[in-house]
Amino acid sequence: MDSQRLVQKFLTSQVSEKSLQIAKAALFDYLTVSLAAQSLETEQLKTAYKEQLEGTSLLIGEKGLATKAFSALHNGFRAHLLDLDDTHSSVRGHPSAVLFSALLTELPYHSGKAFLASYVIGLEIMARLGMAVNPDHYLQGWHNTSTLGGLAAAGALAYLKQMTVDQTLHSMSIAASQAAGLQMQFGTPIKPLHAGLAAKQAVEAVAMAQAGLAAEKDFLFADRGFRAVYAPKLNVAPLLEDWGKSWQVNQPGLWVKSYPFCSAAMSGADAAEYLHQKEGLREDEIAGVEVLFFKGRDQALKNRQPKTGEEGRFSIEYIVWLGLTGQEYSLDAFSSKALSSALRRQLLKVQRTYQEGSSDEPFVTVTVNLTDGRKLSQQVTYPKGSPRNPLTEKERRKKFTTYVRGPWAKPLEEKIKRMEQEEGDSLFSFLQTINGGKTDGRTCD
Amino acid sequence: MDSQRLVQKFLTSQVSEKSLQIAKAALFDYLTVSLAAQSLETEQLKTAYKEQLEGTSLLIGEKGLATKAFSALHNGFRAHLLDLDDTHSSVRGHPSAVLFSALLTELPYHSGKAFLASYVIGLEIMARLGMAVNPDHYLQGWHNTSTLGGLAAAGALAYLKQMTVDQTLHSMSIAASQAAGLQMQFGTPIKPLHAGLAAKQAVEAVAMAQAGLAAEKDFLFADRGFRAVYAPKLNVAPLLEDWGKSWQVNQPGLWVKSYPFCSAAMSGADAAEYLHQKEGLREDEIAGVEVLFFKGRDQALKNRQPKTGEEGRFSIEYIVWLGLTGQEYSLDAFSSKALSSALRRQLLKVQRTYQEGSSDEPFVTVTVNLTDGRKLSQQVTYPKGSPRNPLTEKERRKKFTTYVRGPWAKPLEEKIKRMEQEEGDSLFSFLQTINGGKTDGRTCD
Repeated sequence: MDSQRLVQKFLTSQVSEKSLQIAKAALFDYLTVSLAAQSLETEQLKTAYKEQLEGTSLLIGEKGLATKAFSALHNGFRAHLLDLDDTHSSVRGHPSAVLFSALLTELPYHSGKAFLASYVIGLEIMARLGMAVNPDHYLQGWHNTSTLGGLAAAGALAYLKQMTVDQTLHSMSIAASQAAGLQMQFGTPIKPLHAGLAAKQAVEAVAMAQAGLAAEKDFLFADRGFRAVYAPKLNVAPLLEDWGKSWQVNQPGLWVKSYPFCSAAMSGADAAEYLHQKEGLREDEIAGVEVLFFKGRDQALKNRQPKTGEEGRFSIEYIVWLGLTGQEYSLDAFSSKALSSALRRQLLKVQRTYQEGSSDEPFVTVTVNLTDGRKLSQQVTYPKGSPRNPLTEKERRKKFTTYVRGPWAKPLEEKIKRMEQEEGDSLFSFLQTINGGKTDGRTCD
Repeated sequence: MDSQRLVQKFLTSQVSEKSLQIAKAALFDYLTVSLAAQSLETEQLKTAYKEQLEGTSLLIGEKGLATKAFSALHNGFRAHLLDLDDTHSSVRGHPSAVLFSALLTELPYHSGKAFLASYVIGLEIMARLGMAVNPDHYLQGWHNTSTLGGLAAAGALAYLKQMTVDQTLHSMSIAASQAAGLQMQFGTPIKPLHAGLAAKQAVEAVAMAQAGLAAEKDFLFADRGFRAVYAPKLNVAPLLEDWGKSWQVNQPGLWVKSYPFCSAAMSGADAAEYLHQKEGLREDEIAGVEVLFFKGRDQALKNRQPKTGEEGRFSIEYIVWLGLTGQEYSLDAFSSKALSSALRRQLLKVQRTYQEGSSDEPFVTVTVNLTDGRKLSQQVTYPKGSPRNPLTEKERRKKFTTYVRGPWAKPLEEKIKRMEQEEGDSLFSFLQTINGGKTDGRTCD
């Protein structure tokens, strides 16, 4: 039974020192984007779950504690709310928002090192699942962040809690029976909710399996199981081969975002910004814009005519226009405020074109036709923040200081730096003291 | 936008008097099977959700109250746990377990009549969704009880709470992004869990939408929405046409089960029982058995060689063998106890055969080859409990008295009989007094 072989492989894996260091950087980024995301929507979510605002699990950036289930939901939602959180090309989705949010519910009972190792394992499962099911699963319309995230987070929790093979299989099977999340929600708050739902499903699935509920164990390959229904073309090899040889958190590595929009837009955004910086373009000079993608690579960018900045997170038209005209990719530019009709008319100038075939290094090319007849063009393969063009240490710190302010900001940095030497309850207690989160562009200072 | 047209149609519907009466009978059956289902598994579920055992919502058969989310989960799980709860041919699944469990969280705040009407509306949505997506959706491996149930229960709650069209669309869209449940779980406790998960998703989706979270409104037909991902061949007509002309709760009507196994086995079970009663068959007289199905009609009966009675709920081989040899279809016969190896060997005598084509009245034929060379055969089209061969009032009462005992049994019957004249809080308070549920074959007297 291949589901069992997968579980045996990851439960017995030892992660490398290098991968632990990357996990720490990922946690730092996760907390950065989560603390930045205090907003109307996080308040709405708390209202909906007011019955679960008592418990022992933390809500990032909030004073109170909550049930484990709501903690996972809230933290996952918040981590992905601004679309500033990391992504991974094997997953085709957002791993840290789901994985850390599920694992945080167990943090107090484990060492910092075990926590980080469990994240590495969870990411490995999620990335290998991605390699096994992509691109078909994603192209069908599933939001991989949640469909793969719930399974991976259940596995990560099982690793952290040193569960048996059978309990792990039951947990992941219960998670498989909740795998959901539709791409139609991209551009609405339900997209980030999917990250929270996956984390919550994992926490609940593990609790049910540990309480004794039994599920179909071969969750991936059973008749009418995960493969049959979600990914008929699933390729089993990437799930089982070469465990421990290298770690997906490092190779190919995480994409760490500088800007709050869909990662599929990052290359185009960089190209547009570069053209503006080089040429100092003004709106009235731009006659038309072409953005060239490899076919299917703009699938997530579903909004060609966004009505709000929030919808603009999934619009290459909006993002490229901002970049070309020298406007900042700020939180404010991607808020739920309506875009002006003048701006929306300008977006009609931006067209998408497509290149047939595929590439291991899919580039995006932005071409601007100027009113004076000139044509400017910029191609980007590795946008800033992608594994081949990573943020420097200084840039990561800049992201932190841009989005997170408060007396606890500095101590938090120190705490994460030392994390492999810490006990989990100490970081947990510290995270509890971080509240208010009055740092969001939408609600505050 | 057709999602909106659907919502407008059901939010403005008035249900018939006749359908309210059937809803009452359905509630009576729902409570019967729920009260019968106290078991190890319901305790396990409470253990997993111990953080949510405080709140204002009831747990059927239990003393305490809980959060709305856990109430819906627990009650849905419990209602479907014995597989004794009703089904519906348009749904190809179990409507009442999901719908009543979601609606009960709102019962105290509404009249008995409004509660019943909301159930009728929920069933109508679920059945019409079923007609729109079946048979492909089911044959793909989805468990319709949950994939359609969450959407329908969100709609039923919206009707009960008199929500706006937009809030209803957001609720159903959030539920659509959680639609899940794999048939691989048939024969495990996760199958009944799916009913609870759907009810819980609906309750949570409605709470989130009411708190202000916005989703893609055209949840059925948006690009990469429900249709695109779950049911590409969805036929829109059954969703929108002839609202109010008749009600699915009545026409074609519910299947009310007498026995705790999959409804796809009901015709075969009746045929086997009839042959035993007529011929007084003994085990050693039976050389072989053939069960003839229309192709695809035995899809849910996935266990050809069940190891336990629980797995036997989805095994026509086991069920027909019990019937032919005069054994009762009791709770005990379908418990998690292992089947003897002698019995399991006998099951190898039972073979399935298939008839090509389809039929509006798909019959099942059981043919027994006797050791003396004789051949006996019985065909059943309308098994006992199906809409064309319904349980009599007396048989329904017998089901109640078989499975439910206690000093509150009689008052409960009376209460339900008068339900359209009652306020919801009165029934709610009464249901709270019903505890212990020490009536299950597995745990008790």
